[in-house]
Amino acid sequence: MIVESVGEGVTELEPGDHVLPVFTGECKECQHCKSEESNMCGLLRINTDRGVMLNDNESRFSINGKPIYHFVGTSTFSEYTVVHVGCVAKINPAAPLDKVCVLSCGISTGLGATLNVAKPKKGQSVAIFGLGTVGLAAAEGARMAGASRIIGVDRNPIRFVEAKKFGVNEFVNPKDHNKPVQEVIAEMTDGGVDRSLECTGNIDAMISAFECVHDGWGVAVLVGVPSKDDVFKTHPMNLLNERTLKGTFFGNYKPRTDLPSVVEKYMNKELDVEKFITHEVPFSEINKAFDYMLQGTSLRCIIRMGA
Amino acid sequence: MIVESVGEGVTELEPGDHVLPVFTGECKECQHCKSEESNMCGLLRINTDRGVMLNDNESRFSINGKPIYHFVGTSTFSEYTVVHVGCVAKINPAAPLDKVCVLSCGISTGLGATLNVAKPKKGQSVAIFGLGTVGLAAAEGARMAGASRIIGVDRNPIRFVEAKKFGVNEFVNPKDHNKPVQEVIAEMTDGGVDRSLECTGNIDAMISAFECVHDGWGVAVLVGVPSKDDVFKTHPMNLLNERTLKGTFFGNYKPRTDLPSVVEKYMNKELDVEKFITHEVPFSEINKAFDYMLQGTSLRCIIRMGA
Repeated sequence: MIVESVGEGVTELEPGDHVLPVFTGECKECQHCKSEESNMCGLLRINTDRGVMLNDNESRFSINGKPIYHFVGTSTFSEYTVVHVGCVAKINPAAPLDKVCVLSCGISTGLGATLNVAKPKKGQSVAIFGLGTVGLAAAEGARMAGASRIIGVDRNPIRFVEAKKFGVNEFVNPKDHNKPVQEVIAEMTDGGVDRSLECTGNIDAMISAFECVHDGWGVAVLVGVPSKDDVFKTHPMNLLNERTLKGTFFGNYKPRTDLPSVVEKYMNKELDVEKFITHEVPFSEINKAFDYMLQGTSLRCIIRMGA
Repeated sequence: MIVESVGEGVTELEPGDHVLPVFTGECKECQHCKSEESNMCGLLRINTDRGVMLNDNESRFSINGKPIYHFVGTSTFSEYTVVHVGCVAKINPAAPLDKVCVLSCGISTGLGATLNVAKPKKGQSVAIFGLGTVGLAAAEGARMAGASRIIGVDRNPIRFVEAKKFGVNEFVNPKDHNKPVQEVIAEMTDGGVDRSLECTGNIDAMISAFECVHDGWGVAVLVGVPSKDDVFKTHPMNLLNERTLKGTFFGNYKPRTDLPSVVEKYMNKELDVEKFITHEVPFSEINKAFDYMLQGTSLRCIIRMGA
């Protein structure tokens, strides 16, 4: 996205700057933004219901005098949009926008979950539950961190073919076993993996992802978004035996502070973004992009505006 | 304890060395001992059922020709005992044994839970659930780490008097409130404490201790030993909102490697051990020590042998 104009009081951006819009913002003023650890900005944290700008509680879009509401702070299915300055990250102007646009959400979520939260050490084993975009980005993070064994877990064996491109080098389909997948993984790894990442949002996968890490040092990271009525259950001894359970939101990246460095990882070829982009459609065919997503046939589909 | 003699192959100890016996050992050879993080030795981890020495599966005690079995690897209710070299930590010979003996279990467990696992930063807030010896040692760790608010949670208000000596500066009795204690603590602390430690073993306290930490950065550490049938339950969003849940065993101290440094904290007056020692009895009155413990009137009771 390219800045067309800036509002009153905005000093850190100017017309022509290249930016990524982000669904969750960073005000740089609240206790979360001031914390070294949190990226859950108190002011601009994802809000799917707001639909208006913060300063006047009004929308900037209208049709025939009737307001059209904003969408998760970005409203990017349009050629022009208005966003809070806290919801855009200024990036390297040399970065191709039709590639790095995919870093605004799922890929950074998975990548950061591994690099910023699970933090596998070189040579460690990592299990990834769910091999969609987020899980594959988590695997990419594990590969970048030098993990030795990257075990992909999915109920759809077709996913395993694609996952090989992302460093996943072992596969477990829970449907192939008549015992809980955490037991299968513990047997494969002499007691459990060093790190696991849950990228499905399924509550049973969350529990398995936790229980498959090794006692003494294992860390499990929940990434997938659960349902409202889900309950995470485990025997507390699984924790007492020195396992760690964490969750993450947007890979713990602070959007404005950290996203530019993710773009740089692409620019210096540490991170391969192209392999996540499986489809492209013109805006006039945007509904195809949703179909691909719902069918599970795409990883990321680029929508070209004005075409 | 003073080494009287050493067995074949033991090279790192000699008669006259001062040591602390430890209920859980450190072989220095297994994957846990070689891990930087784990202290859950694969060979010598606490085992309350073994009762014999590892090399020959026999006991070293007998009466009238019948074996008397060892107790959790140490059998220290006796003037002489035989222990695996992996279950003794060699300490500073200048340390008074009738004081530092209490560092072999509960005090190090609580202290290490805070210093090694919860790791509060200077100025942060810490909640401690359960103000027995382990909880008070956890509070002592919070005080040493420079925590600003140390909130003690206990259902017995008598505990609050003693707890003031250990740096606890705010108190919450769940019985005084008609809402969950995690909500009370969240209101007291603008969204939650930075760190919490559960030192009761009660499953409801475990859940409260987790749910009372702040989103974005809060860390909860489970220390108390649960019952066999307990189930830890929480909504997974509590994790996704960037809370961390961990458990610890013996404060994550590797007994032989780390316990000598805890003794040094006492020797250089960083850690006040005396205030934990509320009672002393001669061995002939050992059952009084159990009574004090069961009544909850003691913190630590020293049993003097040969008296």
